Amino acid sequence: MRHAVAHTLAMKLLQAASDEVIKEAGQIIRCRVSLVLANDITAPLAIKSFRQMGAATVFDKTKIALVMDHFTPNKDIASAEQVRGIREFAQEQDILHYYEGGDCGVEHALLPELGLVGPGDVVVGADSHTCTYGGLCAFATGMGSTDIAGAMALGETWFKVPQTIYVQIDGELSAYVGAKDLILHTIGKTGVDGARYKALEFGGSTVAALSVEGRLTMANMAIEAGGKVGLFAADAKTLAFAKAHGHTATQEIAPDAGAPYDEIIKIDAASLSPQVACPHLPDNVRGVDELAAEHIVVNQSVIGSCTNGRIEDLREAAAILKGRKVKKSVRCVVLPATPKIWTQALREGLLETFMEAGCIVGPPTCGPCLGGHMGILAKGERAIATTNRNFKGRMGHLESEVYLSSPSLAAAAAVAGEIVHPASL
Amino acid sequence: MRHAVAHTLAMKLLQAASDEVIKEAGQIIRCRVSLVLANDITAPLAIKSFRQMGAATVFDKTKIALVMDHFTPNKDIASAEQVRGIREFAQEQDILHYYEGGDCGVEHALLPELGLVGPGDVVVGADSHTCTYGGLCAFATGMGSTDIAGAMALGETWFKVPQTIYVQIDGELSAYVGAKDLILHTIGKTGVDGARYKALEFGGSTVAALSVEGRLTMANMAIEAGGKVGLFAADAKTLAFAKAHGHTATQEIAPDAGAPYDEIIKIDAASLSPQVACPHLPDNVRGVDELAAEHIVVNQSVIGSCTNGRIEDLREAAAILKGRKVKKSVRCVVLPATPKIWTQALREGLLETFMEAGCIVGPPTCGPCLGGHMGILAKGERAIATTNRNFKGRMGHLESEVYLSSPSLAAAAAVAGEIVHPASL
Repeated sequence: MRHAVAHTLAMKLLQAASDEVIKEAGQIIRCRVSLVLANDITAPLAIKSFRQMGAATVFDKTKIALVMDHFTPNKDIASAEQVRGIREFAQEQDILHYYEGGDCGVEHALLPELGLVGPGDVVVGADSHTCTYGGLCAFATGMGSTDIAGAMALGETWFKVPQTIYVQIDGELSAYVGAKDLILHTIGKTGVDGARYKALEFGGSTVAALSVEGRLTMANMAIEAGGKVGLFAADAKTLAFAKAHGHTATQEIAPDAGAPYDEIIKIDAASLSPQVACPHLPDNVRGVDELAAEHIVVNQSVIGSCTNGRIEDLREAAAILKGRKVKKSVRCVVLPATPKIWTQALREGLLETFMEAGCIVGPPTCGPCLGGHMGILAKGERAIATTNRNFKGRMGHLESEVYLSSPSLAAAAAVAGEIVHPASL
Repeated sequence: MRHAVAHTLAMKLLQAASDEVIKEAGQIIRCRVSLVLANDITAPLAIKSFRQMGAATVFDKTKIALVMDHFTPNKDIASAEQVRGIREFAQEQDILHYYEGGDCGVEHALLPELGLVGPGDVVVGADSHTCTYGGLCAFATGMGSTDIAGAMALGETWFKVPQTIYVQIDGELSAYVGAKDLILHTIGKTGVDGARYKALEFGGSTVAALSVEGRLTMANMAIEAGGKVGLFAADAKTLAFAKAHGHTATQEIAPDAGAPYDEIIKIDAASLSPQVACPHLPDNVRGVDELAAEHIVVNQSVIGSCTNGRIEDLREAAAILKGRKVKKSVRCVVLPATPKIWTQALREGLLETFMEAGCIVGPPTCGPCLGGHMGILAKGERAIATTNRNFKGRMGHLESEVYLSSPSLAAAAAVAGEIVHPASL
């Protein structure tokens, strides 16, 4: 331990990127960033601010990622014009990691896949779900486009060192219960603002047993509890993932013994049933058994997004849909999160399973998650989705509804036409 | 021959569906319809007119097709609301052939595949490219939504019997020259209004040798010459296609000897190079060799649509893309026209070829063809597309451009980044 005080994961990650000595939460520090991210919605604002602050060049053309993922393939002239402006900026600045078209995927699935984020990194992104990379033990957080412009120019930013809520999860998961259920349950306990400007740090035997993909799913939704970041220690699995994707990290990272936690939440994983966040907030979480009794009919099921669009998620959905049919009254939209995942799903036969079941398989895009395109809801329609937000009108009409769940549940609802426990199919 | 005068294909098809004796072109007749079609853009207008004319029920709930294909998966709240209204009408009227979501495809690819249109049929649709079914020897034509409402209520409509231009095409096609090149060349000769309210009737040895899919491609674009219909005789191939797709037709249909043609156009197929329609009209047709010398750079390539989204088209594109890469500066959007075609392309390895090449593979949708979604152009951008219209602003910004071509050429341009002869790759 390099410093006198014991560090949480958040403190430790910030310390490694700062020249100031971190003594306690609440301290304001300057910090180097490993990568700065913006997308087709937020980059135009960041670029405008970048110009306004008189910046001429980005701090490092290899450490900016611009990912055109929200409305791709461009849904209208406005989105096409946004992308054109960003493309021109990327060409002007010779940005190495500009992604558009056939090599583009949903940013938070794409960057880990490309090894652009990994253990020990500090990543800032003009997107709320930048916190996803906490699953790889990166201090990663969303910021406004103006702050992102500053980071693009300077290669550094400032943080208030966050307090940490330690979420300790132990016990063996039941069938059809996984990472998404764990994070939904956690948010149900904290509420949507219970972790405001705090780090969530996940530990315990259940977390240790989770795949890196599962940890990415959980970290992704830290912001839905208001969290600044959602962090997992970097263990052997994390390092193996990093290595497999070309990231240079080789050191395990764990919190110090005696690290100062603001609060500890304990969760008994073994007691959990599949969880569903009901309209219109991610903390309105109930168990599926309770919901199934209410026969909640759905018009659409969305399987994808930065939360659950990875290959494990598609395997999970395909396991339910194999040999079954999507109910005629349901549109089941499957959106693999990156071209690599899409191709992998094709080769594993998952896409054929989806098509045989009657799904719609789309290209990688954020699409319906944010009401962008590719599955927008009409008045009175209801969707179940593996996405991360169910705010009023999030996926379309103000009088539509979104229920959040795991891929298993979304697939099961597509078959049953209503929210059910997959075991009941 | 049942009647005193010799009949063109158009006259013959109308005669079979009318109780009035057809003596000459220009005559106004009443005619029964086999199928009435509308889509997610046009059905709302047709339904509104249907209500306004006081109609209570459709003439035959098994002979109406409502296909939600243009903005699917719904691109925004407005399109979702349109579909909701149509769905409610379909439920109210117990419409058998209502397609939305996972079983939906691009209407003019879907209906032949389902055997809903075939030789001898008279089909009216609230969509310009309803003429596609002329490739199967159906008298099929687009109409305004009000006329469609009348046909939905009555099961009949009226026509002025069209004059016919006979297009005789003989000779063997060169490599990379096919049905799309033949129709583009034809339109280049007639101009976009040269066949206004006339039937185009295609014959000759080249046409006889074409696959039914190729004929559908050609008939699809009859409207781009102003044609009321684009007709092909029903031969053994047509009947085999009809049978394979569950259509009941069993009789070959050919024009009478001595049928009264208004004009005869002769085309020497052997002399044709691959054809391209340049901005901003489908009749602005030039040979690819001439264009290639101008190094016309493209930002996007679209392979799909009711013109060229069938399995033969995808095979043709994949043959070019196999083992090659889409240029980084090009978005190559592949949209198989129906779920069945999509799955077939998957099973044949075509989708894997597209993904390995760096294409974006989307779900069945009309999408970018009409500037709907899934690949809209920004200011100054240029696309090559296998679609049927290149009007100013058709695929996006008013200052964007669309070049129309075969799948081979669209694929070759995706690789080269500019319009080239596939043989030059």
